[in-house]
Amino acid sequence: MLTFHSERTKLRQARTELNGGELVTPFECPERVDMIIDRVRQQRLGEIRTPDEYGLVPVLAIHDARYVDFLERAWDDWQGAGLAGEPIPAIWPTRRLRDDRIPDSIRGEVGYYALGGDTSLCPGTFEAAQASKDIALSALDHVFDTRASAFGLCRPPGHHAAIDQYGGYCFFNNAAIAAQRALDRGAERVAILDIDFHHGNGTQDIFYRRDDVLVQSIHGDPQHEFPYFLGFADETGEQAGQGFNVNYPLPSGTGYADWRKPLDRAIARLSAYQPDLLIVSVGVDTYENDPISSFRLKSEDFSDCGRLLKQAGLPTVFLMEGGYAVAEIGINTVNLLSGFDDA
Amino acid sequence: MLTFHSERTKLRQARTELNGGELVTPFECPERVDMIIDRVRQQRLGEIRTPDEYGLVPVLAIHDARYVDFLERAWDDWQGAGLAGEPIPAIWPTRRLRDDRIPDSIRGEVGYYALGGDTSLCPGTFEAAQASKDIALSALDHVFDTRASAFGLCRPPGHHAAIDQYGGYCFFNNAAIAAQRALDRGAERVAILDIDFHHGNGTQDIFYRRDDVLVQSIHGDPQHEFPYFLGFADETGEQAGQGFNVNYPLPSGTGYADWRKPLDRAIARLSAYQPDLLIVSVGVDTYENDPISSFRLKSEDFSDCGRLLKQAGLPTVFLMEGGYAVAEIGINTVNLLSGFDDA
Repeated sequence: MLTFHSERTKLRQARTELNGGELVTPFECPERVDMIIDRVRQQRLGEIRTPDEYGLVPVLAIHDARYVDFLERAWDDWQGAGLAGEPIPAIWPTRRLRDDRIPDSIRGEVGYYALGGDTSLCPGTFEAAQASKDIALSALDHVFDTRASAFGLCRPPGHHAAIDQYGGYCFFNNAAIAAQRALDRGAERVAILDIDFHHGNGTQDIFYRRDDVLVQSIHGDPQHEFPYFLGFADETGEQAGQGFNVNYPLPSGTGYADWRKPLDRAIARLSAYQPDLLIVSVGVDTYENDPISSFRLKSEDFSDCGRLLKQAGLPTVFLMEGGYAVAEIGINTVNLLSGFDDA
Repeated sequence: MLTFHSERTKLRQARTELNGGELVTPFECPERVDMIIDRVRQQRLGEIRTPDEYGLVPVLAIHDARYVDFLERAWDDWQGAGLAGEPIPAIWPTRRLRDDRIPDSIRGEVGYYALGGDTSLCPGTFEAAQASKDIALSALDHVFDTRASAFGLCRPPGHHAAIDQYGGYCFFNNAAIAAQRALDRGAERVAILDIDFHHGNGTQDIFYRRDDVLVQSIHGDPQHEFPYFLGFADETGEQAGQGFNVNYPLPSGTGYADWRKPLDRAIARLSAYQPDLLIVSVGVDTYENDPISSFRLKSEDFSDCGRLLKQAGLPTVFLMEGGYAVAEIGINTVNLLSGFDDA
């Protein structure tokens, strides 16, 4: 399988993550990319290509233009305001507050556009996010053109990013941007399957009223797990999108035997939907030793997962999302891709 | 003027405040109380009394019971989850997320009940918040019974606290709790005038659909200033409350000559409303050297402000809100109270 990779994804090197009331070194770190690409080479998964550059047009097909502009200038504005830390919001427009006016000051803007305080902005974030969506788009184009599958080693990840919100380490929704490009190139139906430990709230929201993208997500129950405020089983889509969003929340401690049951159901649903292609949001934070998640998949389970995904019989774009057990992230990710290739 | 004061307000001693992307020592600190009470003594403002205890019934007349329960157990739950810092949320239910389900895990609950990340929870917070509302209620009862005015040296402050949200250093809305008690004791109309630098979003929201409490606030324009997402001039109340909420947002750098213009208008509106009593949410963060605000009032201006407030001719309950120039907080606060007394 072809891998798309860019060193530019490592331009984001945030110093801080708000976690448990402390500012810690971010779990989502550039070393994740190194570990995966090393393993891709070591296991001879296939050729590694540099992505093409697509500019911002495909981003603006998904994201709000003011949001994109904000991401581009946020670091400079924050510095200009004389603030010493990395941009983290201290207030946000929850219920009982208004969200119909965007503040002029950077402290307020950060609160408007963030869905969480976990994800500090920093120099290089915008450039890395651009590289990340270029990777997703290059992988999509390759799959669209050749009907062979491909792996986009995206970083930062994308599935938490909504139309006008960043957070959960995500800025541009790579999977959504790729899905939209497939449609724009002539696909009639696209399916996204999100197997990251965390619910892909951004992806769900982006396509929630549409029937041309089937969005399925298997994840930790938001009643207990990040992002907490979306990802419940009763969220099935609205308007034209009714029935085209499927959530499979699972309890903490879920092992592979129980995790693969909704995977089987999701694959069955893919067969019924008959999409032109499948985009898999790959998170390996379902791994038993992941530091911020609570499922119990073992490294060999990812191989079996890849094998099962192959059963869908679809041209498949794998896009990297989460996974924070850095030492094993390469093994787990490449196990999944090899399991697919070898099936 | 009588002052109500309790050493229990100093039981809240948070270590951290999220500000400018850093965890700093909180601006809202116990020393604020010491500085004010010292100045009250030094200037012989009047007798200092310990408040009576009122329990939680008057709190529950304003705040959601689950919210109050959360505040009481949050620190223990956070500790029980093994989290090392003070409780600060890392995600919250903004737009595109649901706010109709309350998470079971403490990390998620903190995000549900917080309106900001600035305000860490800590041991003693619940006790201090209880003492603070006892002070407000004792001052209210004194004014209600005697028609003489009084000062409640509340800490933590209250005006940002909404029915089920804490933030901006506030947990229980002391002014709202006192206003409700006045009504419950037979007052027909109560007026709240909030002269803190920051908009009293919690107070506004609590009474937004009611005509028995006139809420007026003079503050930094939320387009640029905390809390950013409420406090605009077009927020005038809803339903029965239409016309009973008045906001006077002012630009950064406003000095006393321009600050007192809306004060005059607010006092004129008080005369038209003819409340049984007036509650003043006293913030002296309008002071020119306040570290987190941008108005330019001088210490002597607070004396004049007190004099003007006396013109309303109403039994007046002064309740302490903000003010973070700690060295001058006693001077500025007592200047205001003495200005009122001496007028």
